[in-house]
Amino acid sequence: MTFDNLTGQLFWPTPLKDWRIEEHGFQPEAVIKNGNKFLTANGYMGYRGTLEENGAAELAAVNLSGVYDQRGTAWREPVNAPNPFHVVTRVAGQVLDPLQHPISDHEQVLDMAAAVHHRRTTFSTGNTLVTITANRFLDMAQPQFMFLEYIVQVKQATVISVTAGIDKQIWDINGPHLVDCQSWRDDSVFGYGGQTGESQLAVTTLSRILVNQGECNDIDRPDQVGQTIAVTVTPERPLCLLIAAAVTTGRETDAPIAALADTLASYTPETIGQEYTRHCQKLAALWHTSDIQIEGPQQDQVALRYNILALMMIAPLAGSQLSIPARGLSGQTYKGAVFWDTELFMTPFFLATQPTVVHDLVAYRLKGLIGAKKKAVEYGYTGAFYAWESQEDGYDATSDYNVTDVFTNRPMRTYFKDKQIHISGDVALAIWHAFQWLQDPAILTQGGAEVIVECARFYVSYATARLDRPEVAFADVIGPDEYHERVNNNAFTNRVALATIEAALAAVAYLQENNAEYSAKIAQQWQLTDLLPLFTETAARIRLQTPNAAGVISQFDGYLALADDSIDTVRSRLLKPKEYWGGAYGVASQTQVIKQADVVMMLAAFLNDFSSDIVRANWQYYEPRTEHGSSLSYSMYGLIAAQLGMTAPAYDFFQKTAAIDLTGESKQWAGTIYIGGTHPAASGGTWRLAVEGFAGLHVENDQLVATPHLPSQWQKMAFRTYYQGHWYRVNVTAAGAVVSIADDEKIGVDD
Amino acid sequence: MTFDNLTGQLFWPTPLKDWRIEEHGFQPEAVIKNGNKFLTANGYMGYRGTLEENGAAELAAVNLSGVYDQRGTAWREPVNAPNPFHVVTRVAGQVLDPLQHPISDHEQVLDMAAAVHHRRTTFSTGNTLVTITANRFLDMAQPQFMFLEYIVQVKQATVISVTAGIDKQIWDINGPHLVDCQSWRDDSVFGYGGQTGESQLAVTTLSRILVNQGECNDIDRPDQVGQTIAVTVTPERPLCLLIAAAVTTGRETDAPIAALADTLASYTPETIGQEYTRHCQKLAALWHTSDIQIEGPQQDQVALRYNILALMMIAPLAGSQLSIPARGLSGQTYKGAVFWDTELFMTPFFLATQPTVVHDLVAYRLKGLIGAKKKAVEYGYTGAFYAWESQEDGYDATSDYNVTDVFTNRPMRTYFKDKQIHISGDVALAIWHAFQWLQDPAILTQGGAEVIVECARFYVSYATARLDRPEVAFADVIGPDEYHERVNNNAFTNRVALATIEAALAAVAYLQENNAEYSAKIAQQWQLTDLLPLFTETAARIRLQTPNAAGVISQFDGYLALADDSIDTVRSRLLKPKEYWGGAYGVASQTQVIKQADVVMMLAAFLNDFSSDIVRANWQYYEPRTEHGSSLSYSMYGLIAAQLGMTAPAYDFFQKTAAIDLTGESKQWAGTIYIGGTHPAASGGTWRLAVEGFAGLHVENDQLVATPHLPSQWQKMAFRTYYQGHWYRVNVTAAGAVVSIADDEKIGVDD
Repeated sequence: MTFDNLTGQLFWPTPLKDWRIEEHGFQPEAVIKNGNKFLTANGYMGYRGTLEENGAAELAAVNLSGVYDQRGTAWREPVNAPNPFHVVTRVAGQVLDPLQHPISDHEQVLDMAAAVHHRRTTFSTGNTLVTITANRFLDMAQPQFMFLEYIVQVKQATVISVTAGIDKQIWDINGPHLVDCQSWRDDSVFGYGGQTGESQLAVTTLSRILVNQGECNDIDRPDQVGQTIAVTVTPERPLCLLIAAAVTTGRETDAPIAALADTLASYTPETIGQEYTRHCQKLAALWHTSDIQIEGPQQDQVALRYNILALMMIAPLAGSQLSIPARGLSGQTYKGAVFWDTELFMTPFFLATQPTVVHDLVAYRLKGLIGAKKKAVEYGYTGAFYAWESQEDGYDATSDYNVTDVFTNRPMRTYFKDKQIHISGDVALAIWHAFQWLQDPAILTQGGAEVIVECARFYVSYATARLDRPEVAFADVIGPDEYHERVNNNAFTNRVALATIEAALAAVAYLQENNAEYSAKIAQQWQLTDLLPLFTETAARIRLQTPNAAGVISQFDGYLALADDSIDTVRSRLLKPKEYWGGAYGVASQTQVIKQADVVMMLAAFLNDFSSDIVRANWQYYEPRTEHGSSLSYSMYGLIAAQLGMTAPAYDFFQKTAAIDLTGESKQWAGTIYIGGTHPAASGGTWRLAVEGFAGLHVENDQLVATPHLPSQWQKMAFRTYYQGHWYRVNVTAAGAVVSIADDEKIGVDD
Repeated sequence: MTFDNLTGQLFWPTPLKDWRIEEHGFQPEAVIKNGNKFLTANGYMGYRGTLEENGAAELAAVNLSGVYDQRGTAWREPVNAPNPFHVVTRVAGQVLDPLQHPISDHEQVLDMAAAVHHRRTTFSTGNTLVTITANRFLDMAQPQFMFLEYIVQVKQATVISVTAGIDKQIWDINGPHLVDCQSWRDDSVFGYGGQTGESQLAVTTLSRILVNQGECNDIDRPDQVGQTIAVTVTPERPLCLLIAAAVTTGRETDAPIAALADTLASYTPETIGQEYTRHCQKLAALWHTSDIQIEGPQQDQVALRYNILALMMIAPLAGSQLSIPARGLSGQTYKGAVFWDTELFMTPFFLATQPTVVHDLVAYRLKGLIGAKKKAVEYGYTGAFYAWESQEDGYDATSDYNVTDVFTNRPMRTYFKDKQIHISGDVALAIWHAFQWLQDPAILTQGGAEVIVECARFYVSYATARLDRPEVAFADVIGPDEYHERVNNNAFTNRVALATIEAALAAVAYLQENNAEYSAKIAQQWQLTDLLPLFTETAARIRLQTPNAAGVISQFDGYLALADDSIDTVRSRLLKPKEYWGGAYGVASQTQVIKQADVVMMLAAFLNDFSSDIVRANWQYYEPRTEHGSSLSYSMYGLIAAQLGMTAPAYDFFQKTAAIDLTGESKQWAGTIYIGGTHPAASGGTWRLAVEGFAGLHVENDQLVATPHLPSQWQKMAFRTYYQGHWYRVNVTAAGAVVSIADDEKIGVDD
């Protein structure tokens, strides 16, 4: 059956430059980078920004949120589903793939308004030109679904052969993860899938191909299941394919495979068009609350939207109790694990723009208590020691050997898992902050208070005191700056620990005042009678790093006595380009050169602790010593710079953090481990820098206030934000800001 | 003036095989090794066992005890004095040196009874044979002095040219240390010296050459000051030189240079012969109290004496307040620094055989309080943190970068200085033990009690406690096994800390009971009212590692969970032969393979804590996991094996520890740093293994008891020992031991 009315204009990308990421011309070396840059995602899954003819070699992947598998002794990582959009066009036996075939033109576009991936490539073949256009989206309205339209146009009648279907060759780093794989066909719908080796979770991709013409033959080969279409395409009548596909993981018990297949079987071009509209409406609603409009350079507007979209697309589905991995849904690097990135860099965005998402981010950490408590026991502590790399139920996926020595090719013992104790506080404080921001007691009573108290309990058990001194210390830790391992009294860590214990005391006090029943329950269950005095005592005895005569706060005990070599000097000592800067003997380890914001991270988190003189002194001291070797660094330096009114460097950092996934120039290697992918923390940092920095949005006495520090390049900012039960609009100019209730107003793209 | 009666038979070595170390034939590659093996010393200085024609290239050296200098930024090291025994013989212009010239015979001998170094080499030159015989000793009766006789014999009359005198080219690792050097001659005596760059300490060598014939001409060349002797030597009348020399360092204010020169000028062959007799008598008196006679293999008897002599020769001079460096007086390696080797391995020998020496060993550590207190403050503690590598006044010479990475050639940050906190306790407990052994209250009141209390104070300040746990921990330390850095609760360290605090409490209690005046003084001065309760509390709260179900005591928290790879497996992972096994990423670091006795060191120090089942379980667990990569290891494994009655392995370890400097097969490299030299700790360990192990000598209720475990190869042992004011003789057979008072008896060599 063919669909004569299929014209392939269903998901055409927007022409509005403000809403487009685009690249023209084809660079072979950019294929993997563009897989990140042009990612599309819908919270359920991510589809890397590869071309339809790409496969495992080009890191094409349908990356699933929250599905993990460990094969053998390699590290656990998220599972990729079989890719249903693998389409290869041949002319005279030659594959039309710009990696193999001459082209005359190529463009790749991300339509940010509709989250549509578009590519258009014109191949010079024989004595004619063949143009392939493909547009795809992952359905926001119906997240297991995705759609592709694929059009072949010719300048002269040409015999075309297309193979389309599900690629059985799944890209995996530590795979294969799907075993006992099978393909099948049932009428128009075909499928391919298997189950994960570790948890026997069924992962299946279903697909249906609609075409407007041609001789179609079903295929089921070792590498692909789908269809071939042979046709002589004429200039007047392009070949159009429309592929509707769905993925299921066996978690969705309310959507069995048969139901998904029925839905796919029922689609027509018209109903797919309607589905696209629903997708766009869903996305528009997100943009409505999330967009930031600026008057300023178009590239800034585009970059800002790019980063906002990056967050919107990977937000966990409502009710999923999932969170956001450090590399989003861009693949298997970083083990698909959730880091503190979510809490420190992304949660503020969601609190302000999509507060419902925060409930899932929090729920993920509540479930994570299981793993965090186990981890604490494993290391000899009590309470909750949250994972550096969190997978299901808070399981810490971190290896004890996270870096490979480039000189010996041996794994290096690293301490990210054992010693980054600040994660617990990052989690607890994000929950406490969410409770305060949303004013929703359920956040506390549905598990949030327990997380906060258990994290505080962990710090009490980790803290040590000398018998001859009043203060307690947090010894042998790693702070945000990972180049310096096993340090004592990291400024950020100690401050986070103190705040966590204070939050625990405040949470318990709040519950006692407002929820007698729950309070009575937890008093017994958590042994608060013993615990609270320990909290009070520990909080009183924690030693914070304090500014020296020059106002500088030591990053940890002894940091300021380390060699004060410049970054260039330190870099010049590298013997190999991929050498690890940190660890016991790295070029930075015994110097003051740091990887990323650390004291400045503390300033960002606890700005009210410090006078602006101290803040400035530390920004000025640490910035020249910071390699910005993490995507978490630029935004915090930019944020603090903006808050200090140093708008020129702040703007510079804005451009850097906003461009990380656009340029793809971020660090791709740690030792010999590939760590590429998208950087949602940089996206969240971009938003924080714009909203908290340039617009200066903050809370004073439970009131939203904006004290703007706009860069000279920007004349205006307008955005919406949620706070304590109300929507506000914020309009910012150089002259000042207006924050006004906007519960019944509309702003943004759909004004 | 010539001395016709000079015949060169003054210091002829003993023919008794039991008292000789000898080597026949010449191996060029053994020259440096033999510099250690054939060392002679007299407490004031050491003379490496090189040949007279050797110079800096062959590491010839007169190594001074307790004189240090730092040049530039290289590490401080002991100073070598100009060598007065540099003698080169030429025939027809050719230098007679086995490295350059054919020989027909060569022998090198250490006469252990007289501590005389003998060499005899026959050179094939032209159509005749020329034999050089040289005997030298460092005067035990007059420690600044040394004497050499040098005889040239021929088969046919031969024209001989000899250059003798002080070698101005001093071998230094990080030198030159002597600046503004000058040579001079005053009548028959000539000299050469300069002053140290750092402390302006004058170091001078004076010499006088007596000859029996020939045409003598004074020389003063850039490389040497002395004399040339030209003569036709006949078979009937060998050429004989007798060189009397003295060294002064400007510390000996009672022996100015002029007085030394007068003494040298006054010498005749006869008075030198008399001085040799005095030297031998002094040495015989030492042997009288120190020798161990065995009935058993001659090689064991020789090896035992060799190790005893090694200790006797390097014992500090009475009143010098010096101690014994880890490489004795064999050169500049290990910075000439004093390690815990002295306290744990050598002090027991001196307590038993030469108790007066112990007063200087203790006095050295009393002076070291200055440095130990400074070091504690530097690292943020109170009390006394004794140096890992101690030079004058307890100054810690340890570099923060003690090993060079063989892959990158970069210095590696090591923690021997910062984290080996057990040294303080090793020092304190040795002093406490000396007080108990000698029953001499002056050891406490002349500074010993202060050292013990300050070391205990240090541990109290280092100990940390969690607020939710009763026990205190010693975190982030290095134990005896240096391959595992920055560990928590090292079993040995925690036990030493506890014993130190208990010794401090016992010392204070003893003084209160026996010395009211001193007690009153220190109560105020040391703030004992505040301190003693802290001592009591800390001692009660220290957590010791306890045996697991299998009886095994974990070397530190988490040790038993490390990879249980075999030593061979670990060794097979080496990529380069000189690679460091320890540090953060060494092949042993994340395994249970250890460098040296650690838990077994604890067993040796606190044997009474444990049942023999536990001792055996730990010996059997740790021995196969011990690389014995330190000269401190064999003896302790042997000692415990003997005490367990496992005499076969004990005997095996005896042979290994006793042979370390005889075979020269000990580790010569740490990374790329040369660490060769003699191993007095292995010598002390040999003695401990023989006396405390095989003879089973120990104290029970203030009584000396011997419960022997003789190896099957030995039938008898006889030795003397001092204990609490009395001399005892101990006679051991397989049937049992007799310990009897022997204050008026004589045993040993001069029976």
